[in-house]
Amino acid sequence: MVKLVLVRHGESEWNKANLFTGWVDVDLSEQGVEEAKRAGRRLKAAGLSFDIAYTSVLKRAIKTLHYALEELDQLWIEEHKSWRLNERHYGGLSGLDKKETAEKYGAEQVHIWRRSYDELPPLLDRDSPYHPANDPRYKDLDPRSLPSGENLKVTLERVIPFWQDRIAPQLRDGRTVLVAAHGNSLRALVKYLESISDEEIMNLNIPTGVPLVYELSDDLAVEKKYYLERD
Amino acid sequence: MVKLVLVRHGESEWNKANLFTGWVDVDLSEQGVEEAKRAGRRLKAAGLSFDIAYTSVLKRAIKTLHYALEELDQLWIEEHKSWRLNERHYGGLSGLDKKETAEKYGAEQVHIWRRSYDELPPLLDRDSPYHPANDPRYKDLDPRSLPSGENLKVTLERVIPFWQDRIAPQLRDGRTVLVAAHGNSLRALVKYLESISDEEIMNLNIPTGVPLVYELSDDLAVEKKYYLERD
Repeated sequence: MVKLVLVRHGESEWNKANLFTGWVDVDLSEQGVEEAKRAGRRLKAAGLSFDIAYTSVLKRAIKTLHYALEELDQLWIEEHKSWRLNERHYGGLSGLDKKETAEKYGAEQVHIWRRSYDELPPLLDRDSPYHPANDPRYKDLDPRSLPSGENLKVTLERVIPFWQDRIAPQLRDGRTVLVAAHGNSLRALVKYLESISDEEIMNLNIPTGVPLVYELSDDLAVEKKYYLERD
Repeated sequence: MVKLVLVRHGESEWNKANLFTGWVDVDLSEQGVEEAKRAGRRLKAAGLSFDIAYTSVLKRAIKTLHYALEELDQLWIEEHKSWRLNERHYGGLSGLDKKETAEKYGAEQVHIWRRSYDELPPLLDRDSPYHPANDPRYKDLDPRSLPSGENLKVTLERVIPFWQDRIAPQLRDGRTVLVAAHGNSLRALVKYLESISDEEIMNLNIPTGVPLVYELSDDLAVEKKYYLERD
């Protein structure tokens, strides 16, 4: 039996300001920092320790990982970052106020963009400052792998190769794995792990800062799943 | 021309308390946190950015790296930790008060332990809580590679393989490298890079929180060396 723990980062400055974020590299709010530390305390209270950790290339997830590891006194473990664990890219909605967007496009359309599995948001122009082609952290990637906007389907298609190639082999080797990431990249992972349908997955909401523990069989089938609710 | 930048962590809780530290995983003091942020501001003021970072498995160096990268807005770069970049292991002196040690062993002997290139400190018993064999972060290493106490010579002998195998190839590939580490692991690196004699190296003191920049030729010869003194 091996353990995989998922932690969704807490409140960011833009959550607080009610803006669409996606790949924009926004910092945690003070409350978000507290949520990260609380996640660490919960992992510690559950007696967990980790062999390896994964996160995105966005600071709100990276800092969540660091705060949690610090509470665990495990800052020294191996840590890997990948764009494949990034939040869903919100395309042309990035940086827009959620309320203004609803007024402009209609609440119904915004609901579809947020809750449909395979509806793409408006796509970004290549020269937008929010386009990953203009961000040095993606400079070594094949430009064709850089999204101009994503739905959950596309997000899943770039998360799962990372699971298959990087995370799963560690679990198969018996290592305990921590993943600190985002609402939609974690939702993609959960959909895959539990074979959840395209419709159902949109109703699944992973709470922020509450570690989600999976106990997996040797062939990585889910045997048990629970949230750590106690500090 | 490629760039290598070394940052020595700032004050720890045990520096403040005047205790021998070595491999004991002591946290930064408040002043140490400030020194780390200042190092980051100086790197930023110099217009530097990095492709990859290396640090030890001790939190005072790891946190120095994270604080500095955060000031640079580069928390997202690749980061690798290794015991080979740890501070010199102070053996049986670990955790002892420096003044009391001088009273017990004589100031002359303590001076030799601190300033001789190849004099070993008293060695630790295998069952000491300070022995690396009893620390989970070293559990995957060959037990024969775990020191019971080190001088600078032995420290250098385990730092340089990491330079040769991990850091040097990145620089040869043209990548800009940041190393956040400790007084003696950095001194070992500087000795090797500048071919400093065994006697002279003991007089070289790298200031804490002041980034040391090396500009290196394609074959990694030192062309220029300077400290970043301005925020």
